[in-house]
Amino acid sequence: MKNNDEKEVQNPITKRDEDFSEWYHDVIKEAGLAEYSPVKGCMVILPHGYAIWEIIQKVLDDKFKATGVENAYFPLFIPEKFLTKEKDHVEGFAPEVAVVTHAGDKELEEKLVVRPTSETIMYDTFSRWIRSYRDLPLLINQWANVVRWEMRTRMFLRTTEFLWQEGHTVHSTQEEADERARMMLDIYRDFSENFMAIPVITGVKTESEKFAGALRTYTCETMMQDGKALQYATSHNLGDNFAKAFDITFLDENNETKHAWQTSWGLSTRSIGALIMSHSDDSGLVLPPKMAPIQVVIVPVIPKEWDKDMVMEEVKSVYDLLSDYGIRAKIDDRDFLSVGEKYYHWERKGVPLRIEIGPKDIANGKFVAVRRDNGDKNRIDFSGADESVKKLLSEIQDTLLKNAQDRIKENTIFVDNWDEFEKAIESNKFVMAHWDGTKETEDEIKEKTGATIRCVPFSVEEEKGKCVYSGKESGTRVLFAKAY
Amino acid sequence: MKNNDEKEVQNPITKRDEDFSEWYHDVIKEAGLAEYSPVKGCMVILPHGYAIWEIIQKVLDDKFKATGVENAYFPLFIPEKFLTKEKDHVEGFAPEVAVVTHAGDKELEEKLVVRPTSETIMYDTFSRWIRSYRDLPLLINQWANVVRWEMRTRMFLRTTEFLWQEGHTVHSTQEEADERARMMLDIYRDFSENFMAIPVITGVKTESEKFAGALRTYTCETMMQDGKALQYATSHNLGDNFAKAFDITFLDENNETKHAWQTSWGLSTRSIGALIMSHSDDSGLVLPPKMAPIQVVIVPVIPKEWDKDMVMEEVKSVYDLLSDYGIRAKIDDRDFLSVGEKYYHWERKGVPLRIEIGPKDIANGKFVAVRRDNGDKNRIDFSGADESVKKLLSEIQDTLLKNAQDRIKENTIFVDNWDEFEKAIESNKFVMAHWDGTKETEDEIKEKTGATIRCVPFSVEEEKGKCVYSGKESGTRVLFAKAY
Repeated sequence: MKNNDEKEVQNPITKRDEDFSEWYHDVIKEAGLAEYSPVKGCMVILPHGYAIWEIIQKVLDDKFKATGVENAYFPLFIPEKFLTKEKDHVEGFAPEVAVVTHAGDKELEEKLVVRPTSETIMYDTFSRWIRSYRDLPLLINQWANVVRWEMRTRMFLRTTEFLWQEGHTVHSTQEEADERARMMLDIYRDFSENFMAIPVITGVKTESEKFAGALRTYTCETMMQDGKALQYATSHNLGDNFAKAFDITFLDENNETKHAWQTSWGLSTRSIGALIMSHSDDSGLVLPPKMAPIQVVIVPVIPKEWDKDMVMEEVKSVYDLLSDYGIRAKIDDRDFLSVGEKYYHWERKGVPLRIEIGPKDIANGKFVAVRRDNGDKNRIDFSGADESVKKLLSEIQDTLLKNAQDRIKENTIFVDNWDEFEKAIESNKFVMAHWDGTKETEDEIKEKTGATIRCVPFSVEEEKGKCVYSGKESGTRVLFAKAY
Repeated sequence: MKNNDEKEVQNPITKRDEDFSEWYHDVIKEAGLAEYSPVKGCMVILPHGYAIWEIIQKVLDDKFKATGVENAYFPLFIPEKFLTKEKDHVEGFAPEVAVVTHAGDKELEEKLVVRPTSETIMYDTFSRWIRSYRDLPLLINQWANVVRWEMRTRMFLRTTEFLWQEGHTVHSTQEEADERARMMLDIYRDFSENFMAIPVITGVKTESEKFAGALRTYTCETMMQDGKALQYATSHNLGDNFAKAFDITFLDENNETKHAWQTSWGLSTRSIGALIMSHSDDSGLVLPPKMAPIQVVIVPVIPKEWDKDMVMEEVKSVYDLLSDYGIRAKIDDRDFLSVGEKYYHWERKGVPLRIEIGPKDIANGKFVAVRRDNGDKNRIDFSGADESVKKLLSEIQDTLLKNAQDRIKENTIFVDNWDEFEKAIESNKFVMAHWDGTKETEDEIKEKTGATIRCVPFSVEEEKGKCVYSGKESGTRVLFAKAY
């Protein structure tokens, strides 16, 4: 049997261009992010995956609170009758809810639905909280688990139970509600680009793609490495639909009773799926430094036992230097793994930077830092290593964003005839094309090509043209793509 | 109608000595901590209550992680057959579980239980994770919601759904598992005393009071203002009971297959109930500064409109000074409430320190700071206010702990005969008495007096004596009390 240093490791990760879907699952498995549980469609989020979720929570929670949002917690269970109050909402969610019929050894008088989203239970309560314009705006968020019974599941992207945050706000005017919905969408966009290194296309959903019960749904759409779109986060202007269904009214400054205006907005563990599919490669997970639970791993290289104390002392001093500088570092001092096995281990886990420190490095006053994203080796002075490492991490973050931006640019095309449209969708492009604005056309295009309208991007300008499918008049291009 | 300044406010809070239980609910309502929801036995945790939970999460999470614990997330649902694998466990929990029988419009082939606790779903998974001694110890925690169908509920103390953390660890030796269980109990004790200002009595539960499936349950017990005990947090040495039921084995260093040893430990939103009942008074909530989402409220006093700019400028400068010093401060600049109404508002919410700043204070170079815990007014120099306020907050923290310590001391008595025992329990004392160690005696004492054995405190010394009920031999005193 070969010893550890010589052992050739068979790459357990399917190549992206062989089978993207298999690759995705292999990356998750090898990085130790999540695994399927014994409960159909539910996953176990492993420590490395959950640590990413904790970073997401911390960053977003701070951003939400800075806009005046407060956290609260509403019940997991929703009385079945609540769900039926808003007719579009119940149509959208009734087919996928889990229902508790028995509890404490008895049949329940009224069945309870496990929340698929919390509009109904929250708004029933809001209707009692709100009396006057002085109670507005009401800005509530909750971090919670929700359950939607899915037939076909895929880890992080679509699971029966998932974790998310759901924000719910109430306003005295329609304008203020719309402004809030757009403000929260912008927080998602900013978070996505500047933390996750995932560029997004923001825009408005079509009537058939909007949230069940919303007046208008704003969305962040992004492109995965296979060219498919992924809906990253959404923010809904609910109009007064729920306010009317749940009788949320307030006395305005003239003492007149008015219906309130609402928004809801959410981002879930699905975003971790986007993170994985945006940056990772055939060697495993790649994480942008801002989202990496471990940003730097330090591997001591100890060729001879008598070097150990000296090397470990230097390793610890670099670790302390980086930690004090606010860098999330880790020393891998396991004695039952070879250096090569350690490199391999942390590569698959997506740690952005690997530092190797051995006797020669110490003698030369420089250590080697290897970038996970492109394999570049950097020789770094021990003195001032904190700033050099921080700069490298920042470069990795920028490179990953740039790569993803380039990908969207290169794979987004403007198309004006049906043949090209079909070909473009077939090869997983983002297609900007004219659409006649009807549900019939939207449905037929989906039926024929698998593409949906991801959104009407905010960035598009008015432009007269003919619908790529029906040839009818169109005032603007929309974004078509196949999607997760 | 009287104007706001003159309006006498009817205290909406029942007095403690009139009806302690009503007082408790009034405090929760008036402080805006929680309210009952439309779902039987479930509550809505309001922003002020949830902000306390966030502080609890932050403090404990850091302490757990410092001992090597990692967070993960396991499914909400548990296949019914899992629950039955450990026989004591299923007996303990089966009668109070909620069951999902239908999902996605269909009847499920196997019923799913909503987790009342996660030993079974986690340990089934752990059995696949653990192969060798190198995989141990496994130290996992999760922050989650759990559901136990309770007949009689009380906000925070006993609700159908509640939030908690549950830690689950696996070890290669029984000694290490016991050490871990004790270590986590000590974290709870430290947190309770040094953050919540709640002194606890730590010890071991009796066989009938221990966790369903545990070998041994360690507990933190504390005394509420009415003299009743509240179990604050527990930590279980599970022995190898679950390891055998779920086949969690590992290869030891000699390549022999062994069953692993486990612990689980939890603290829930129930601890907020303890916080409320420990410190609050007839005017509402009282919070120790370390647990207060808002530690200092600054109320501008503006007798004349032309003073406004000058006062607000000073108010903001004090606010900045305190915030920069890490103090959680808030300015109440609402213009539709009188100064008196603001004082009243923040008093009920338990803000530890109220600062009043008006033109006279500014002229004198000192402002008034009023302590919530004892009403003391302190005159504080504007210059150096950050340190003075921090010192005051620290004094409040100490005073609350001291008061609670005195209460336990004064109300704990040693009793050696049955008449005194009955009287002492009747008047809600903590009673240290000899017990013969049998379940029969424990049950009969409970039946006759309502008192349970809270624990065998670690602090008691061996002492020969006669059981207070049966007269039989006893080697140590145990703690009896009525409990929540």
